[in-house]
Formats: sequence, C-alpha cells, structure tokens
Amino acid sequence: MLQVWLLVDLDSDTSVPVFQVCEWHSPEQLKKLLDLELRDRGEPESEILQRCRDAIRYSVKTSHPRFFNQLYAGMEPYSMVASFIAEAVKTNLYTYEVAPVFTLMEDAVLRKMIKVIGWEEGGDGIFNPGGSLSNIYAVNLARYRYCPDFKEVGMFSAPRLVILTSQEVTQACIFTDKLLLNLFQCHYSISKGAALMGIGTKNVYTVPTDERGRMIPSALEEKIKLAKSEGAVPFMVNATAGTTVLGAFDPIDEIADICEKHNLWLHVDACWGGAAIMSKKHKHLLKGIHRVDSVAWNPHKMLMASLQCSAFLVRDKTSLLQRCHSARASYLFQQDKFYDVSYDTGDKSVQCSRKPDAFKFWLMWKALGSRELEQRVDRALAMARSVWANRNYQLSFTPEFANVCFWYLPPSLRNLPESPELWKKLHTVAPVVKQRMMKTGSMMTGYQPLGEKANFFRMVVISPQVSRQDLDFVLDEIHNLGKDL
Amino acid sequence: MLQVWLLVDLDSDTSVPVFQVCEWHSPEQLKKLLDLELRDRGEPESEILQRCRDAIRYSVKTSHPRFFNQLYAGMEPYSMVASFIAEAVKTNLYTYEVAPVFTLMEDAVLRKMIKVIGWEEGGDGIFNPGGSLSNIYAVNLARYRYCPDFKEVGMFSAPRLVILTSQEVTQACIFTDKLLLNLFQCHYSISKGAALMGIGTKNVYTVPTDERGRMIPSALEEKIKLAKSEGAVPFMVNATAGTTVLGAFDPIDEIADICEKHNLWLHVDACWGGAAIMSKKHKHLLKGIHRVDSVAWNPHKMLMASLQCSAFLVRDKTSLLQRCHSARASYLFQQDKFYDVSYDTGDKSVQCSRKPDAFKFWLMWKALGSRELEQRVDRALAMARSVWANRNYQLSFTPEFANVCFWYLPPSLRNLPESPELWKKLHTVAPVVKQRMMKTGSMMTGYQPLGEKANFFRMVVISPQVSRQDLDFVLDEIHNLGKDL
Repeated sequence: MLQVWLLVDLDSDTSVPVFQVCEWHSPEQLKKLLDLELRDRGEPESEILQRCRDAIRYSVKTSHPRFFNQLYAGMEPYSMVASFIAEAVKTNLYTYEVAPVFTLMEDAVLRKMIKVIGWEEGGDGIFNPGGSLSNIYAVNLARYRYCPDFKEVGMFSAPRLVILTSQEVTQACIFTDKLLLNLFQCHYSISKGAALMGIGTKNVYTVPTDERGRMIPSALEEKIKLAKSEGAVPFMVNATAGTTVLGAFDPIDEIADICEKHNLWLHVDACWGGAAIMSKKHKHLLKGIHRVDSVAWNPHKMLMASLQCSAFLVRDKTSLLQRCHSARASYLFQQDKFYDVSYDTGDKSVQCSRKPDAFKFWLMWKALGSRELEQRVDRALAMARSVWANRNYQLSFTPEFANVCFWYLPPSLRNLPESPELWKKLHTVAPVVKQRMMKTGSMMTGYQPLGEKANFFRMVVISPQVSRQDLDFVLDEIHNLGKDL
Repeated sequence: MLQVWLLVDLDSDTSVPVFQVCEWHSPEQLKKLLDLELRDRGEPESEILQRCRDAIRYSVKTSHPRFFNQLYAGMEPYSMVASFIAEAVKTNLYTYEVAPVFTLMEDAVLRKMIKVIGWEEGGDGIFNPGGSLSNIYAVNLARYRYCPDFKEVGMFSAPRLVILTSQEVTQACIFTDKLLLNLFQCHYSISKGAALMGIGTKNVYTVPTDERGRMIPSALEEKIKLAKSEGAVPFMVNATAGTTVLGAFDPIDEIADICEKHNLWLHVDACWGGAAIMSKKHKHLLKGIHRVDSVAWNPHKMLMASLQCSAFLVRDKTSLLQRCHSARASYLFQQDKFYDVSYDTGDKSVQCSRKPDAFKFWLMWKALGSRELEQRVDRALAMARSVWANRNYQLSFTPEFANVCFWYLPPSLRNLPESPELWKKLHTVAPVVKQRMMKTGSMMTGYQPLGEKANFFRMVVISPQVSRQDLDFVLDEIHNLGKDL
C-alpha cells in the first residue's frame, strides 16, 4: 500500500507532534513565521526547502483521521499519485492532440459514471473545477433547452425565469446580533450561479423542506404554480442528494414526476451524496436518479479523490453541452485536423485551460475496483450512524448520510428546562469550543446555525482511516474543551 | 537546480526515444493500449505502476524544448514542487481556518502583482481556475458596478447591455468548404462569458483592429456611439494584452481615455501578455495598465508556473469583488469566529472548492526573485524575434511578443505569383505538415487560419530551456516534412 502519511513524515524534523491536525496561529503571527514578501533577489535552495516544510507544517492536515471539518477528508493515495503525474505532465484538456491520454480517460470515467447512474442510453459530461461550476452548467443547459436564442441575444426581452430548489440553509439566525436576512438554498452555488447568469438570486424560489431537510414535493408543485401565476417561467428544479449541512436527500422520484408534468429540467446536486450510488445498500437514497436531466457528483468528497475532481453529467444525447457552450475558436478547434475532432472536448467547457481531473478518479477506480469503493461508502455510513449514545450530546438530526449534527451540552446546561434562554446559551457554546479546538490542534470539526436552531457541530465521517477510537476521541475532546462553559 | 526532466526519466525503461515530444496514436489505437475500462475488481500495484508509466508515455511532453504548440510550455521546477505540496496537503481556499498558509500566500502574491501593475492605492483579487473565468469575473464586476440590482432581480427588465472588445480571430475562413459565419473576439472567453451571463454573444461588439491585430481607439469610440444610438448600454471594454494568435497588445492608454470619457469599465485580458510587465524593457507594451479597472494575468503561461495559475486583479478598494459574488453561506462563513474573518476569502469566488494556485507562483517567485523572472521574459522575447530570415518561410506578422506566426512555402509554391489560387494551395500545407509532425513526434507547433489569411503556423517561444538550436530544428523539420507538397 502506498504511504499516505507523507505530510506528517515530512514534518519529522520539527518539534510539532505528529498527530496534531493543525498548529494554530493567528493571521498576524503566521505572516511573521512565513516571511511572505517577494523580493528582487531569489533565495537559495536550502531556504526554499525550509519554506516548503513550513508550508506543510502550518497547513491543516486534512488527511488526519481526526479532521472532520469539511465534506472532504483523507486522501486516496492512488489518486494523489495521479494528481502528481497530472501536475508534472502539465497539460490541458482542450484537444486530443495535446492531451490524448487524459481525453480518453475522462471519456471512460464519464461513461462509467453514467452507467452507474443508470442512464441506459448513455449521455454526456465533463469534469469541472468544483461542484459549483457543475451546478452552474446545469442552470445554463436548462436555460439553453428552454430557449437557445438567449445564447446569442441575451435575456433582455425574456420573461422572468425561475429556478426551484430546496430550502435548507436559511440564515435568519436569531441567536446573534447580526440578523442576516438572506435566505439560502441547498448549496449556495445555485444562488451564485443565478446572480452570475443574469437570472438573479430572487428568482431562485426555495421549496420548503421536511424536518430532515428534504424537499416536500407538494410544496414544489405549489411553488411552480405560484411562479406561473406571477407570469414567470419556471424552467428548472435543483434537487439535492446530500445537503451540505444535514446530508439530506430530496425525493428524486417524486420530484421527477412533477418535472415531467411541467416540462422542467431536473438537475440533481449530488456533489456530496453521489457516492451512495456506488453502494447497493445505500443507492436507494438516490432512487429516481436515472430519470433526471443532469447530475453533479464530486468524487473528491466521499470517494476521497484528490481535490478537485468534480463531474457534471447530462442525460442528453444531442450535444446539448457542446451547443450550449461552444465558441468554435479557430486557433484551437480546427475542423481540418487529421483525426476525429469529436475527441476535442474543450469546447464543451466555458473554461479554456481545463485540468485532467478525471485521471485522479480513473487511476484509483482502476486500482480499487467498484467493490472496494462500495465497501468504503458502506463503512463510512455505518461509522457515522454508530456512535451517538452519550449524555453530553444531543443529535440535532438523525444522520441520513455521513453528516453527524449534534449539540454539545455542557454540564451547566444539561439539566435546564428547554427555553429560548437555554437555546441562546447553547448557541454560544460551539464557537468557544471550536476556538479552543483550533488552538489545541487535536481535531477539527465544523459548526453552524441552521434556521432557528442554535449553533451545532457538524462532523463529517468519510475516510476509511477513521476508527471507532477517533470518533470516541472527538466526543471526549469536545467535552474536555467545553465542560466549564 | 531541481530536475526538470522527471517525465522523460520515468520513461527510461520503455523503448520510447527520450527526445520525442509525443508518441502519436489515433484515439482508437490508444484506447486499446490503455485498457480504459473500470471494473468491479481492482488491479495489483505492479499493474497500476505500469498504467502510470503508460499515462506518461503517451502524453504529450509539454515541457520538451521543442513543444511550441500552446501558450504554455516548460515547467518551472519550484512551481511543480509547490503544486505537489498543494495536492498532498489537499485543501481549499475558502477559509483561513482550513487553509491558513495558502490564504496568506495568495494575499501576498496578489498584493505584489498589484504593485507591479502600478495600482498605487492597492486593490483586490483572486486566483481562478483559468483566465476564462477571470475574464468572466471582469464582465460580472463591470455589470455589478453598472447596476448592483441585477444580482438579485436578474436582467429581465434591463436595457440591452453591450461589451466591446477587439476583433482578432474572425473565422469567416474562405479557404475551406466549411464557411463558419460566427465572428469571434480576442479570446473566446468574452463570448462564452456573455452567453453564460445572459448578455448574449451578439451583444459583444467587436472593434476593428489594425494590421497587427491591435484595437483601433477611434473605431472603439464609433462602436460605443453605435451601441448608444441603438438604445443599448455599453458598460465595459475588454482590451487584450497579448492576443492568442498574434500576441498583439491593444493600446491601453488611449483606450483608457475613451473609457473614462464614457464611464466604462476597462478590463485588460493580459493572461498571455501580463508577463511583459515584469520586464523594464518590455513593459511599455502595457502602457496605461495602472489606469484600468481589472486585469487577468496567468503566470502559468509565460512565467511557466504549473497549470493552473491565473490571477484576477481589481483596482477597486470597496469590496466590489466580495459584494458582487458573496452568498454568505452560514455553514462556512460564520461571523462569530474568533479570528478576523476578512481572511476568509472564499466568498469572493463563484466557486466553493478553490485550489491554492497562488502558492505555485509564490514559491517560484521566492526562489527566483523578480530579477530572474524579468530575465526570462527578456530572453524569450529576444529568442522569438531572432530567427526569421529563411527563404522557406514568410512571416505572417512581425512578432510583437512571443508569438511567431509564419507560412511555410514548399518549393512547389515558392516562385508562383501571388494569387487566390496560391493562397488556397498554401492553406492546405499546414494541416498536412502538422499531421506528419504529430506522427513523427519530433516537435509540436500549432497552426490556424486568421480572417482571410490562409492557415499559418504559430510557434510560441516561452521556456528558457529553448535554445537557438531548437528554433533552427523547427525550421529544418517543417521543411523536411513539407517539401514534397
């Protein structure tokens, strides 16, 4: 097995304990430690080597088994090898001519992902630098299908277009002085995309969710009717498979019925939850995904490919992706080439330079096989659901996926009756524990408010390196850090 | 000095000659050689190692000194080391908390680039996955400055907006049967951006250029007046510093006068030509850049940082970038953190995951110093301008930058009088030579038509590893490959 502890080993000549997740310094302190200034004269190699060591030392060890802070953690070593090769080969995926190997590998990976999704007649796709761009592509394709003319003439005389998405991360936080009035949807990329694309954040209609954060289909239909009654044109629905905070899965099958009825593009943001489809045991979470128009799925999340590795998949077989994004630049996409130019996939992208991210997934899949990927997903989900009987904690939500959301109850709050006062106090606990956690460097896990709920911890269990002991450590450590609060 | 020949050395146990730029196979042949299928069972390590070797072997060696095909070539080894570290550390640049080192390094590099540009009061910026996105950011910021309300309400009741850019790559190619009627601008990213952003490609007005591909300022003013007379709203001008094909530099100072007069956002796409600003001798090419509103500059091009390394820089000091792109997701950008959250730069981006590309430039700048960077630019430009007295060739354009554009005249065409017939014959030469070149693998350089000009070669001289011998080799080799035509 390849060595995954590279980062920590490189640090072995420093005084940092090997198992610290991070060595916290404030921005001002760290600036002094790093000597960031760029000068006229270069530095000798020994100095540069030390700067490399420092960059590693003061970075967060996201592959540490006690890093639970993000929707990525751990590093599949085969994928890291692939990313080193991709960096060293230094090429872009616009033409077959300049990236023959990676062009074919991207094609192979996309075909396999499409097969796993269950689009029996095939489809199309592309790897993007991150899931946000994949979601933005979905909006663009949906809009293009609704009216291809917008590509040329813009939307200036268009009717008001509306996107529908589930409402999870509502930010009307009542526990701080800063009342933020914006409402956000599942993942904020849909909002960001709507702003960028001239559609506007207010034309992203949020659909109410149930107590577990899943879109309510009847509410979706009501919102569609509402938009129509206002004279607006709903053109796509964004369903989420694995929301960022709760790990909730919208009911795709029921949503697909509604989209078919109203002729709406159905996109599934499965950036986080897409991995479940690898597992016979858990793929029911994505039931109906074979019916949707497009999917965003990031193997750099639960499947631990190197960052970034984000696929955008489309069920269309009529070159919609190409037609929607193409500009046919003559200096790159010459039509009088001597090979089949359908292998020049660059014009499917809004980027020009595009990295061969698919290779990172291809190599690890080749090495591990679908079965090992499946077992890893099963193991992570089993682990996430295993721990939570502990009197110091209260689960905010029963985990549906690998997101474990919980409040830590310090002894001083444990026997108080439930009241607005209690929630207000509880809201202040997580930020203080987080601060102490960062300064200790023993572990990392995130926290956030949600709607009217006080700040709670979100621990994301991904890596097969994580053991039961690591999970127990988290519970003990949060208690150690917060028991005086 | 670090070893840059890594890629070739890794191939040493194969039969590939060390100095081949590529080993050409058709897509169908290469598919068989690579065995791309992903299966249920994984493969043993020895097999995977062979797959890594094959990926390298059949990839194009873009760091080979005879690779002149793209606006990138060669690899700065310090930058490659940085990219390996960044891959291994595996983190995203959204918050200081999870990327403390890279956040500060990005800040330091951006500040330094802003200083070099000459924005004395500072500015703002961000690294993006490629220059196309930087150009798209410029359009978005310009639009946001014109009307911040579009972010929320979209452009549905907006007046028709118009972007102005120079017209270089016109694709009305008269030499092939495929008459492509689209007109394209400097770099197609402005068109792609206009399509994505709901502005529409037809609302990108192209400004005529002089014989060297530079925007004509008086023509710009006429186009602005034309747009206004049509009732449209011109809101930004995209000037290009180093066009893709010709390496032309628009006259920024004169364009800035016009933009000030009409209150238009002035963006400079200096993705390719930005490196000239490092050189006292050549920075006059960008005269006036201290007056513009935003700049896109890719150190992965002439400065040879690893792919991708693309900076977007804004002169604004009022958080325009943040205000234009922010969504303030509560799970990531908590306001009750214990450190200065202005270091959480993720909300300046439309991405969520974003790679620490700045580190690749920071480390090499630290190692080489500004002076060595300057010398490299000077050397590449001197080299590009040095060679072209050879009776087999005719320069299409005197090089203004590192793009050397030329026709190869086979002996059969050399003494013919100039006529449409001659140009038509000449148009077919480059594709045949290119095909033979790829199959030989001895070198790589690109070709394209331009406007009514027949297909010509574009050779891009970047790497300090390129010698006079390499350039001579190119001339001899093209002649060898095409003398029978």
